[in-house]
Amino acid sequence: MFENYQSKNKVSKDDYKSLEQSLRNQLQQLQWQAAKQKKPVIVVIAGDDRSGRHETINTLSKWMDPRFLTVNAYGPSRSDDDAKPFFWRFWRDLPGAGEIAIYLRDWTSTSIVQNLNDDISDKKLKKRIQFIRSFEKGLIDDGALIIKIWLHIAKPVLKERVKEFRNTPYFDKKDELALRNYDHAIETIKGTLSQCNQKQAKWKVIDGSHERTRDVAVAQHLIKNIGQWLDLNQNNESGCKNAKLNKGSFSRLKMPEEDHAITGNTYKNKLEKLQSKFRQQMFDLQKRNLPVVIAFEGWDAAGKGGAIRRLVAPLDAGFYRIRPIAKPTEEEYAHHYLWRFWKQIPRNGHMTIFDRSWYGRVLVERIEGFASINEWSRAFNEINSFEAQLHQHGCLVIKFWLNISNEEQLRRFQEREVTPHKKFKITEEDYRNRDRWEDYTLAIEDMIENTSTQNCPWHIISSNHKNNARLQVLETCVKSIKRHLKSY
Amino acid sequence: MFENYQSKNKVSKDDYKSLEQSLRNQLQQLQWQAAKQKKPVIVVIAGDDRSGRHETINTLSKWMDPRFLTVNAYGPSRSDDDAKPFFWRFWRDLPGAGEIAIYLRDWTSTSIVQNLNDDISDKKLKKRIQFIRSFEKGLIDDGALIIKIWLHIAKPVLKERVKEFRNTPYFDKKDELALRNYDHAIETIKGTLSQCNQKQAKWKVIDGSHERTRDVAVAQHLIKNIGQWLDLNQNNESGCKNAKLNKGSFSRLKMPEEDHAITGNTYKNKLEKLQSKFRQQMFDLQKRNLPVVIAFEGWDAAGKGGAIRRLVAPLDAGFYRIRPIAKPTEEEYAHHYLWRFWKQIPRNGHMTIFDRSWYGRVLVERIEGFASINEWSRAFNEINSFEAQLHQHGCLVIKFWLNISNEEQLRRFQEREVTPHKKFKITEEDYRNRDRWEDYTLAIEDMIENTSTQNCPWHIISSNHKNNARLQVLETCVKSIKRHLKSY
Repeated sequence: MFENYQSKNKVSKDDYKSLEQSLRNQLQQLQWQAAKQKKPVIVVIAGDDRSGRHETINTLSKWMDPRFLTVNAYGPSRSDDDAKPFFWRFWRDLPGAGEIAIYLRDWTSTSIVQNLNDDISDKKLKKRIQFIRSFEKGLIDDGALIIKIWLHIAKPVLKERVKEFRNTPYFDKKDELALRNYDHAIETIKGTLSQCNQKQAKWKVIDGSHERTRDVAVAQHLIKNIGQWLDLNQNNESGCKNAKLNKGSFSRLKMPEEDHAITGNTYKNKLEKLQSKFRQQMFDLQKRNLPVVIAFEGWDAAGKGGAIRRLVAPLDAGFYRIRPIAKPTEEEYAHHYLWRFWKQIPRNGHMTIFDRSWYGRVLVERIEGFASINEWSRAFNEINSFEAQLHQHGCLVIKFWLNISNEEQLRRFQEREVTPHKKFKITEEDYRNRDRWEDYTLAIEDMIENTSTQNCPWHIISSNHKNNARLQVLETCVKSIKRHLKSY
Repeated sequence: MFENYQSKNKVSKDDYKSLEQSLRNQLQQLQWQAAKQKKPVIVVIAGDDRSGRHETINTLSKWMDPRFLTVNAYGPSRSDDDAKPFFWRFWRDLPGAGEIAIYLRDWTSTSIVQNLNDDISDKKLKKRIQFIRSFEKGLIDDGALIIKIWLHIAKPVLKERVKEFRNTPYFDKKDELALRNYDHAIETIKGTLSQCNQKQAKWKVIDGSHERTRDVAVAQHLIKNIGQWLDLNQNNESGCKNAKLNKGSFSRLKMPEEDHAITGNTYKNKLEKLQSKFRQQMFDLQKRNLPVVIAFEGWDAAGKGGAIRRLVAPLDAGFYRIRPIAKPTEEEYAHHYLWRFWKQIPRNGHMTIFDRSWYGRVLVERIEGFASINEWSRAFNEINSFEAQLHQHGCLVIKFWLNISNEEQLRRFQEREVTPHKKFKITEEDYRNRDRWEDYTLAIEDMIENTSTQNCPWHIISSNHKNNARLQVLETCVKSIKRHLKSY
């Protein structure tokens, strides 16, 4: 059906004229209504360059209110784009609450073109398709509307055009090429689109060969879909079926038999040796252009700050950034919760250390009820997909849980209260969190169970002795980097 | 003094040891106090690569709390940087309220290097220095603290080093070159730094040759300056002395004798002709890689939206963005008011249309008291400098004031109230603004008087007839682009 698909009834000039005003009014009305929703609308207009993609988007910009419409068009990729994972730029440009964005050259069509140009193998395309599905699913689960339109041009039409143009100055060699590779391209397109079809993110194929007919069909498809979405005002929360939730075993967080604290010169010598090794590795990573992400999570007062300081002490300041994660800003809150982390991932050869991270979704947000059960339970899969993409791009992901015992935490809180320059670190909230130790334990166990993957495992650091913990963090980093440098 | 400047008393190992803990405590205390201020701290550590710039910043990162310290290091410029005006990346990375950022390779040292490498002429450096002064002044006026440190290395020291290293594997040809060009470089540095000295943004020259001595001196300078700034909690509001404020002549906004409304086919033909010309020009601009910024201001209901839609109708959607400007977000509010506009300027060959703009500072913020008299009166100069930088980079800046009479506004408000799909456009606030027509008139006259420059003039568009206004807007754009393409 795809190969020879051509719409039979063409929209006449007169029909177009009488339709235009009504389509325009409907589109604008829907825009205004959508602006009031707290969720974004994502429109993908894909297809071959010869299928009128640009013209259709121009028509839409004319019909809709262009002030509340963003067109994300991507030309040839820039250095900045290549130094980050594939989905980075699409995440960066995601519309916020109440916004509508049209993507010209989206993730799927770009992947198809990359495969047709042999920039990515069939195997990599297959992997990419998984990421596409989880990218779109994550947005839909978060309440976004995704409309995907593929503008198709049938082979006989293309043949006709190439024939017509061959002896004119408008002739473009690329058209000839497109015609020659048509059958292979269509197979790839068909296969990819159908594999990317999923609930609420289905591809709509529209015949691109006749301008008026095409633009009307696209507008009608948008009107139908935005209208339905607004009507439903859907509450399509879907939990993660794979999440194995804890039955209360609490085994991972049990503190091991107490080691002796490492102190004095033994500590100093070990620390310096590890730091110097770590410094050397950072240069190796830079030379190899490989990025690193380190996420620190842990109980309050477990010593994240101190561990981070020992970790970065040997590094050149220009090559790492530390991102303390507080509660989201207004703008961040208006986006998918992973948006702010995507924006902050390091470019190649650089390192970002997150002091608290995206795991807030399944810890504080779960416990405090900021995320619903469906939201936090599907977050396990979303996070795994996020980290898998980083890893696939060549980024090393290291995750730490700094673990202390309940008694040690209390001791540290009390110590902070009597130390003048540490007093600012302790608030009533810390004690409130302490009261929920068991709830947190459950959430942490679930987190580790569901997000420890082969490539991005959790490292639980026994932190009752600060020095020991700091050495362990450095040691883990050194080991992980060593393995990463070998495998990449 | 600069040439042979060397600190006489070197900090011994023992002194360093006893100083270190105290410097660290003081720095961290100041960091925490600064975090509570609603203003940013900007630290520039500049100087030759051989002067220990990197090492000093590493020491600071070790002594200070690295989680609340950002180091903005710039390597070789990327395509993205070159496609925007010089100051763009420094604006983009400005610290927000309560944040501290250290710049490695700042605006001044980069300008000096560009001049020494013949990338920019002496004349251009001179112009650049003006921009540096106004950039820093704007930040200081806004309450920021700027600390600028130049790490110096005396010629005899450099000579000694080069001699020592010449026969070792550590020898770098660049050192030899730096030695050969030393005298010329020092002249340029001395001249530039002294020209960039201004109140509250003075350069401090510190001898970079001895590591411990240097790092202690830098830390002490930071402690002194941040401490003084916190003590003063300064209220250094400085008005703009050049602003010629209106005496009530109201001459610019007087509506001219009413033209006839242009309608029907006459309008249609003119519109299409202008749009087609404008479309062609946009391709020319893209080919020449020149960017365009268009700012729309005007009375409520003057027809900005309609004019913008006719303007972009002929353009390809990938090459322009429309930015509707609403009240600032939390994050924007935590920065200098020009920050959000700097972030949104177009890259080369692209166009950004602002639906309301940075002129809000001298219009609504002035009238409603969101900006103090000192803030809005110095904004005239700040805005002129902003636009001059865009122009200098090759960007065409077009500014429109859509002017309607008081009676016409009332007529349109009333019309909106009875038209179902326009009703959402009218609120009580519109009527409140209407009551302040005279105050606004005064502010608009002042704005036009003080920010109409040769390169970035205001265009006042009589908009009582919508069609006439739309044609005038397009005509002005076409004329301005034509001139721009010629002069660049």
